[in-house]
Formats: sequence, structure tokens, C-alpha cells
Amino acid sequence: MDTRYDIAIVGSGPAGLSAAINAKIRNKNIIVFGSSELSGKLIKAPKIDNYLGLPGITGIQLKDRFQQHVANMGINITYERINTIYAMGQYFGVAVNEKMYEASAVILATGIEYTKALKGEEEFLGRGVGYCATCDAPLYRGKVVTIIGYNKEAEAEANYVNELSKKTYYIPMYKESLNLSENIEVVRDKVVEISGGNKVEKVILKSKEIVTDGVFVLKDSIAPDKLVPGLIMENGHIKVDMDMKTNIEGCFAAGDCVGRPYQYMKAAGQGQVAALNAVFYIDKN
Amino acid sequence: MDTRYDIAIVGSGPAGLSAAINAKIRNKNIIVFGSSELSGKLIKAPKIDNYLGLPGITGIQLKDRFQQHVANMGINITYERINTIYAMGQYFGVAVNEKMYEASAVILATGIEYTKALKGEEEFLGRGVGYCATCDAPLYRGKVVTIIGYNKEAEAEANYVNELSKKTYYIPMYKESLNLSENIEVVRDKVVEISGGNKVEKVILKSKEIVTDGVFVLKDSIAPDKLVPGLIMENGHIKVDMDMKTNIEGCFAAGDCVGRPYQYMKAAGQGQVAALNAVFYIDKN
Repeated sequence: MDTRYDIAIVGSGPAGLSAAINAKIRNKNIIVFGSSELSGKLIKAPKIDNYLGLPGITGIQLKDRFQQHVANMGINITYERINTIYAMGQYFGVAVNEKMYEASAVILATGIEYTKALKGEEEFLGRGVGYCATCDAPLYRGKVVTIIGYNKEAEAEANYVNELSKKTYYIPMYKESLNLSENIEVVRDKVVEISGGNKVEKVILKSKEIVTDGVFVLKDSIAPDKLVPGLIMENGHIKVDMDMKTNIEGCFAAGDCVGRPYQYMKAAGQGQVAALNAVFYIDKN
Repeated sequence: MDTRYDIAIVGSGPAGLSAAINAKIRNKNIIVFGSSELSGKLIKAPKIDNYLGLPGITGIQLKDRFQQHVANMGINITYERINTIYAMGQYFGVAVNEKMYEASAVILATGIEYTKALKGEEEFLGRGVGYCATCDAPLYRGKVVTIIGYNKEAEAEANYVNELSKKTYYIPMYKESLNLSENIEVVRDKVVEISGGNKVEKVILKSKEIVTDGVFVLKDSIAPDKLVPGLIMENGHIKVDMDMKTNIEGCFAAGDCVGRPYQYMKAAGQGQVAALNAVFYIDKN
């Protein structure tokens, strides 16, 4: 399925939503990838005093206001997790499992809460370790797969993989109850290391080891330079200029992912700048 | 009168106020220079759709919300016009007529609506043309002074100058009725040029000429590099980095004065960044 949007916005925190309303006002055809909570960080804020115009507001209240604002403008949030964004020159390919969206410009507003990589995770990436179970599941037909899930969304992917694999292990990195196919083996243990030789061979846990052909690490968000190959980072943040341009033409970024301070107002302001420059970029081409 | 503040914030639009609330939250002793309207631009906005969290708000409503926010936090606006800000190395001297405030850091949030210079204004600056009547009035004791006033606040300065001068002309650049000393001669005419030789000799109007020893041009705002000698500009805006730092240590800037897009949210976000970096600068020293 190919769908060409003007702008794909990745993230539904203050930066992403501010980008969305500004792009929409400029009549751009946008797609916003995010979560139903909009921002996991925002909803946990007990009280926010420095969002100018809305003194002493709670994170939930501010989230509700954001939600109402985008809803008023007819902006929907797409609850899908992007695997990779490919810069194709004239456009971007946004891969979501088996689907590929297209967009003339991209705004990254992914926040900063990246999950720290497990020992061995980066070393074996592409050699048995993957971030997209539904993409790569066919490689593991009839084999043993271990899924390290950081959130409940990972369970659906585990169930899909399990239809093809010979054996599926699921290691939840969270405490909630699980909704998994019956024959998936749940292992509640601390991951020490993903190890192997040329390729992954096992997952070492605190109390035991799992011999496996492949490991999927399914996190809330992945580092921007893994999400967009070729993106230049600087001190752990996406490198941008004052116009919120990254090193990749047509790719902009805003909010916590581009640097400190990690603040809602700053993020929203940068989202606006990113959107207006993305609009300018599209209109110019 | 010497008063040392942590941060002097110049401007009471979204950038200045956002800077103020963030500095205040960080327990800094601040002074905010601005106007009772807060922002002349904001109050004229019929409807604002892109201030995230407050959809479809009018400029007046948003101004009221800003006002309430700063009032809630005990922040007052000082309705004084700054003549010059001097970088003294360890601190800044903020000159307001005969008063001098001191501040460890300065945040410029002056907006962008600079009044276009009159013909001859910049040429004769310091050679008979001045921007601060109350500062320089003693130079014109017993002489002829012409005041070109862009707003009603200029009238008080004209009255003061008139106490010392031999003759005072007042050219209002606005239409409201005037509150001037009786012997000030009001000239309602279009200014064509300020002219002279080595120094100012006359103001050429559309229908006549005024022979004068000095001319005061009293505007709403003056260009930042006139306000802060030594400040580096770039394409008509204050040059800043991503931390909102100008070329002068301890001097930060935010909002329309640092560049496009001229937007409230962007300005508020930058004000926040400027404040947090100013706080960091002060705490470090």
C-alpha cells in the first residue's frame, strides 16, 4: 500500500502536535504517528507551571487540551510503530511492518526516552537481533525465537511470530498481565546479555539461558539514527540548525530529541518552526 | 539608584513572559520591562489557532491568560523604556533615563516591530540626534530642540526637555490628542528629512522647515544593536545559537527579534530556553 503524504510527523508529544496543527493550518496533508496517551512523559507530570497561558495545569489536563486542539482541527493520530524511515531523495519511505507510507517531508518528534540497549543488542543487530518482529518473522519459520517486549504492544507481534516459529519465548520487561498465545513460553527473568558467535546463539538471563535462533527487542522507541539511517546525531541528540533542519534534506526534528532543555513549551515552539520550514521546503520543490 | 537583579528581561510578549515564569520558578530575582498591553502585536490578533492547548483563542484572550499567569506567580511588569544596556563584564547596566538598574544576565525579547529610521536619523545619531530626551536634555539648555514622538510616552519627555530648552517643537507621529506644556509648539506635518552639516541643523517637513540644535526621536522600540552596543545582528535579527546566547556573554535573546517565523509558540519556547540558560549562566558564575 503506497500513500503519499506531504508530511509524516513521528511523535505525538508537544513537538509533534504543534508541528501537526501548524502543518494542517497550511493545508498540508499530514500523517501523525503516535500513541493514544499522546506523550508518556506528559501524562505523568503532576503539575506544570511553565506552560505560558495555562498556569498550574496537570499533565493529564494539558494532554486533554492538546487532544481537544488536534481533534478540533480534524487531526488523527495513527497508532502504529515505525520500523524505519528511508530517505529516497525526492521523498521518504516510512516502513510500518508490512506497510510503506510515503511522505515528501518528515518531522521527527520522538522524544528522548530511549530504552538503553541490552548487552549484545547492538553487537548482534542484523545478525539475529531485530527490532521488527512482523517484518522479519518469515526468516524464523520453524525456528526458535525469543521476544524481549518492553510494552503490551509487543504481545501482538509475539503472537504473530509464534504462528511461524517452532518455539517462542517471551520475556516481558514490564509487570502487567500478558495476553499471549497459549504455547508461547513466558520467562520472567532479568536479561543479562544476548550472546553468540557469528550470530545470536542465546539469551543469558540471571537464572538461566535460552538457546535461540533469533531475538526481537520490541521497545517504545528506538534511537533516531536507527530509525532514520544516515541521520547525524550530536551528544545523543539529533543535530539540527535554527530552522530545525537535520542533515537530511526534507527531514526536520523538534522537541526533546534535538536537545535540552526537555520542556513542553520549548518542544511546542520547535515543532512549529519545524512544520513551517517543512511547509516551505515542500512548497519550494 | 542601583538595584542588582539576577535577570533583566526586556519585553513582555510571549518570549519575555515565558522567560519570566521560567526564571521565577528557578528562584531568580527578575525585572521585566514591558508595556501594560504586554504585546502590541498580540492584542491585535483576531484569532490564533496554533497556540497548542488553546485552540481558536483571540489575541486579547491570550494576552489575558498570559497576564493571569504572570500575576499568579507574583511577576510585575515595569513600564519603563530602556535607553541603553551596557555590558560591564560581570554584569549589565540597564539605563532608564536617570536610573540605572543592574542585572547579572539580560534576556532580550524586544520583538521585531522596529520603526523604520527617518532619513538622516542614523547619519546624525550622536551629532544632534538622540533617542533619550531625559538623558541628553542638559546638553540643550537654552537651545532649540525638536522632538519627534511616536507615542504618548514621548510627551512627558518633551515636557521635561522644555523646562531646559529655549524653544521646543513637538512633531507627533500619531493622531491622539496631546498633553504638552503650553509653550511647546506642536507641528503636525510629515517628516521628510533630518539634515545638517557636521551636526544637525534642521528638520525638513513636507510644508516647512524647523531650524533646530537637536532632535530627539522617541520610538516604541529601538533596534537591538542600538539598545545593546556591541550586539551582533544577522539579516536584521539578533544572532543567537541554539541556547539563545548572543555574542555577548550573559546576554540572551528570544522571540521575533532573533528571527522567523514570527509566531507566539516559537517565541514562548525560545523564551524558556533563554531563561533556563541564563539561570545556568548565573549559577555557574
